[in-house]
Amino acid sequence: MDLPENGRNRVAIEGVKPEIDGGLYPIKRVSGEKVVVEADVFTDGHDAVSAAVLYRLDDEREWRRTPMRFLGNDRWRGSFYVSELGRYHYTVEGWIEPFRTWRNDMVKRIEAGQDVAVDLLAGARLVEAAAEIADSPDALRLREWAGALKRPGAAQNSYLALDEDLAELALRYPERRYATRYPKELAVTVERVKARFGSWYEIFPRSCATEPGRHGTFKDCEAWLPYIAGMGFDVLYLPPIHPIGVANRKGKNNVTTAAPDDVGSPWAIGGAEGGHKAIHPALGTLDDFRSLVERARSYGLEVAMDLAFQCTPDHPYVKDHPEWFRKRPDGTIQYAENPPKKYQDIYPLDFETDHWRELWEELLSVALYWAERGIRIFRVDNPHTKAFPFWQWLIAGARRKYPDLIFLSEAFTRPKVMHHLAKAGFAQSYTYFTWRNTKSEIVEYFTHLTRSEVREFLRPNLWPNTPDILPEYLQYGGRPAFFIRLALAATLGANYGIYGPAFELCENEPREPGSEEYLHSEKYEIKQRDLNAPWSLREIVARLNRIRKENAALQSDWRLVFHPIDNDMMVCYSKTTEDLSNVIVVVVNLDYAHTQAGWVVLDLEALGLRNGGPYQVHDLLGDARYLWQGARNYVELDPASAPAHLFRIRRKIRTERDFDYYL
Amino acid sequence: MDLPENGRNRVAIEGVKPEIDGGLYPIKRVSGEKVVVEADVFTDGHDAVSAAVLYRLDDEREWRRTPMRFLGNDRWRGSFYVSELGRYHYTVEGWIEPFRTWRNDMVKRIEAGQDVAVDLLAGARLVEAAAEIADSPDALRLREWAGALKRPGAAQNSYLALDEDLAELALRYPERRYATRYPKELAVTVERVKARFGSWYEIFPRSCATEPGRHGTFKDCEAWLPYIAGMGFDVLYLPPIHPIGVANRKGKNNVTTAAPDDVGSPWAIGGAEGGHKAIHPALGTLDDFRSLVERARSYGLEVAMDLAFQCTPDHPYVKDHPEWFRKRPDGTIQYAENPPKKYQDIYPLDFETDHWRELWEELLSVALYWAERGIRIFRVDNPHTKAFPFWQWLIAGARRKYPDLIFLSEAFTRPKVMHHLAKAGFAQSYTYFTWRNTKSEIVEYFTHLTRSEVREFLRPNLWPNTPDILPEYLQYGGRPAFFIRLALAATLGANYGIYGPAFELCENEPREPGSEEYLHSEKYEIKQRDLNAPWSLREIVARLNRIRKENAALQSDWRLVFHPIDNDMMVCYSKTTEDLSNVIVVVVNLDYAHTQAGWVVLDLEALGLRNGGPYQVHDLLGDARYLWQGARNYVELDPASAPAHLFRIRRKIRTERDFDYYL
Repeated sequence: MDLPENGRNRVAIEGVKPEIDGGLYPIKRVSGEKVVVEADVFTDGHDAVSAAVLYRLDDEREWRRTPMRFLGNDRWRGSFYVSELGRYHYTVEGWIEPFRTWRNDMVKRIEAGQDVAVDLLAGARLVEAAAEIADSPDALRLREWAGALKRPGAAQNSYLALDEDLAELALRYPERRYATRYPKELAVTVERVKARFGSWYEIFPRSCATEPGRHGTFKDCEAWLPYIAGMGFDVLYLPPIHPIGVANRKGKNNVTTAAPDDVGSPWAIGGAEGGHKAIHPALGTLDDFRSLVERARSYGLEVAMDLAFQCTPDHPYVKDHPEWFRKRPDGTIQYAENPPKKYQDIYPLDFETDHWRELWEELLSVALYWAERGIRIFRVDNPHTKAFPFWQWLIAGARRKYPDLIFLSEAFTRPKVMHHLAKAGFAQSYTYFTWRNTKSEIVEYFTHLTRSEVREFLRPNLWPNTPDILPEYLQYGGRPAFFIRLALAATLGANYGIYGPAFELCENEPREPGSEEYLHSEKYEIKQRDLNAPWSLREIVARLNRIRKENAALQSDWRLVFHPIDNDMMVCYSKTTEDLSNVIVVVVNLDYAHTQAGWVVLDLEALGLRNGGPYQVHDLLGDARYLWQGARNYVELDPASAPAHLFRIRRKIRTERDFDYYL
Repeated sequence: MDLPENGRNRVAIEGVKPEIDGGLYPIKRVSGEKVVVEADVFTDGHDAVSAAVLYRLDDEREWRRTPMRFLGNDRWRGSFYVSELGRYHYTVEGWIEPFRTWRNDMVKRIEAGQDVAVDLLAGARLVEAAAEIADSPDALRLREWAGALKRPGAAQNSYLALDEDLAELALRYPERRYATRYPKELAVTVERVKARFGSWYEIFPRSCATEPGRHGTFKDCEAWLPYIAGMGFDVLYLPPIHPIGVANRKGKNNVTTAAPDDVGSPWAIGGAEGGHKAIHPALGTLDDFRSLVERARSYGLEVAMDLAFQCTPDHPYVKDHPEWFRKRPDGTIQYAENPPKKYQDIYPLDFETDHWRELWEELLSVALYWAERGIRIFRVDNPHTKAFPFWQWLIAGARRKYPDLIFLSEAFTRPKVMHHLAKAGFAQSYTYFTWRNTKSEIVEYFTHLTRSEVREFLRPNLWPNTPDILPEYLQYGGRPAFFIRLALAATLGANYGIYGPAFELCENEPREPGSEEYLHSEKYEIKQRDLNAPWSLREIVARLNRIRKENAALQSDWRLVFHPIDNDMMVCYSKTTEDLSNVIVVVVNLDYAHTQAGWVVLDLEALGLRNGGPYQVHDLLGDARYLWQGARNYVELDPASAPAHLFRIRRKIRTERDFDYYL
């Protein structure tokens, strides 16, 4: 029977984490983050082993190495930081350390008072082997040591064998000839920090005009920038800005026949004026758009565009590339359908066409077209209705040219499909947060998102509302409900967004009872609003976004911990920085109608409060400060005034010891 | 950017189970068992998909296919049976089913009363496509159907579109041009049934003589066969039968200096008379051994040999192949050590030698030598002190020639190492059962072994004692403790074994308090026993082994379920066949000193007793029968008489309805 090449590679490496689907998909990090790698590394017998994480940038040929630390039960852990955008690779190596085995054994032999003369000679051999590969000053010291170990009478001086400095030196030069390399090279996709932390605001530019009824323009939208930036957002997301089809255009409230002055849905892309690379003339010119993008940037707002790969019957593709669409047996082009519903204003692209290569290239060129014009964030409309391999290819291709590109997946669909899109390359994903209202729903869902393997590839972006979704909770709960959902979104999610001004103005009328559609939905008509309405939540939004900017704990999701509270209408959770220098505890009353009270039981260890003693909790929302002690503390929240506490924990509180003359 | 080859393969396949370490290692089955494969199979949009498990024997080129069934949440399940010993491969395929999508849509369209004229034409196209690849009678029927769908006025007859028989026919011929194949081919190792179910008895042949003090022979051992077979065992495992070294031979009670008449340890292999292919002259000749193997077979006993790859200083390898051993700096050969302990009677083989290839080949030739002489079961001594890649190679090589070979791993070591040896190819493994005495220990450990992924590759073989291990529980608990541990081993483990006659005679004296070694251990001296001692458990052993043979539920481990019982000194569990035709419920009192009682709460659904009504529990150990009803029932067990119930559940009990004249 054939012998293996590497029969002397005695170390086994298993259970490497993180590893998605056996290494088929990369994990995700943002620049500056750490990748913590764990693995089982062990060998037969009682030989000591060592392990290292090997990692490199995509275009580097040499691996960098970082040692792994033994955790117990054959488990090892090591970590490295990623900085460059793009892709890193990592794997694990393990090898036998005869010198360490020898030294461990020597301790036991000497303790047992055994004759170690021959063992010292064996050790000298190992030290000489280390000297062979050591740098010159170290090699000299190691050779001297080996010489001393071999000298007659060395056995009288056991400290010679156990010298810790020399041992450390010898361990620096391990023989890795028979090292085992984990057979897979795993990958990390590295994106910029905004992929992990951002506050999004969605707005229809056509509703930005000051005069009632007029179609708003990019210029009008510029005038809104102080308002939006004043609320502390940093991503301004615009629904599609392209020409809108006339054929089968939908009228107000989504009726199938449009009135002559109906503006249509921005997602019905393509008209006589052009398709996905054109701009709706009523919004302005490309220059106007660029001006908006630049002005927004000066306000700290990055413009995100919508990538909605679908066409109206009027889209130029229909005429120029009929081969990209599916034909019905009567020769007409297949419109979108979800039987028995028909969407005759929309032609889906056919990803199974024989001309799929040209289609893919064209769609990539759309993303690149806008990237060339300064756009670095795409919110992708319904990616789950386009082929998965297409997204994997498009995102990789676009990010190869623009590594700072961020793609947000708007896939409200089954969990496996959402996860798969995230694995395929989307930086962020919409979530079921929109419908998670009760305490058990929130605890279960966010534990899943932040504690399971899913966190390695899916970054949640939480939206309490969208132009398509006015959830029932908001319909019935009035302003307190909006406040509650806002507080949850802004603190549970490092990424969150609202569709405004509908949100901060607490618009809550559905088209009909039981529907989640807005009455007079902005998708089909131009809206005009009073931003200064007295019930506006704009001040609360501004405060929340400021708190998010000032507290690093709220800028990532992995350290979310839920704490028990003895009232099912209330939820309590914390977020902390890894070094516990920033600790935020949130308590929310989920009941928009009644004051609720309860006792929280804080996990003091998770909050760095193990030492006992009192601590200050400072409500960053209401600005009140309380002195708490121990795990159990009382909280009462009236939804009519403020349904949430957003406590910053301050461990240091003043006592008599702070007075100069105390000592 | 380069386009992928398979851009139109829109189906995703993920989360395939079972899959060990991303497919690096095979799962295990025995001949006749089922492999149940699950996977997430889904695509974009709302297109219907189908999935199949593909499987084949190692040397087959064509895949066989078996359909998968939809479970919900994008999960699919399919299964196939394995029969041939050796290796099978399996993977998963998924594809889009335009015909099924069309049919699903048609139902909704027709229900909504839509005009479906064009849709019928679209369906006709799909039916024609199925006809293209159909067999001739089916093709004819499909073409007729397509014709009917295209006929003017067909839309008036909606049943034409929804005909179930024709739909099933069309679905039999799917277009799989763009099918996605899961990128890994996973493997199943198939062994014979004894790998899963066997009752082992370990005996030292040299203790089989009838006269005190004489060295027993294989012939003497033959005389014991009726006794051993009478207890119902089916594997007779012999410690090494090779010549024993003289140099540094251990004396009675493991002392370092042997008396002239000391026989030494059978695991100290190799002497002037030969090594691993030789037989200890005092036991007899090769012909005597063959005779024992054949006689044993006539009693339904298969002889298992010990594979202990280590040498005494007198082993022929030491002289002929000094290059297979490690040298100390003083030129002597390195003896076994676990500092500060020295085992100077044993030289370990050096798996890192430059001559490892020759060493491996020689050791494989040892296994093949005995396989050629009729041995098909090897109990491997301390495999965790030899290189993992060596075992993987040796077991694969030996099984290629003798596919019915079974290797049992005697690795009492850390869990990751034990698991790795199982993955490397050992059919069975010793376990921590030997030290799992309390209820929580038993429930936790056996849930892990039978419910976690571990069961896919590690088959437990439970030993309440071995020549090396007399656990404290047995030392203190007397005969009831032996009964308890026996009942647990024989019912928790489809594979179990005892080291006899020490076990059935309840030998329980340790060498010293706190030690697990036997006093006057049989490893170092010849023993003589009275098999007819009145306290012998031989009748209990016989009864348990008979129950195991008569109840298929006890012949596998996967369907083990623990049931609550409100007494921490008692444990209750069941095993069932998959079809629930054989249902066994075991209740054990773990307290060897006191009668214990408690209420069990049976999981009636797991036992096929959902329908309610009374059922009979028949204690196969004590032969008593009770009528039970519902989940909660009372049990009381006196360890002095019988510390366990071994109930067979009989669902059918007689009522007045059984009388002829009832109706």
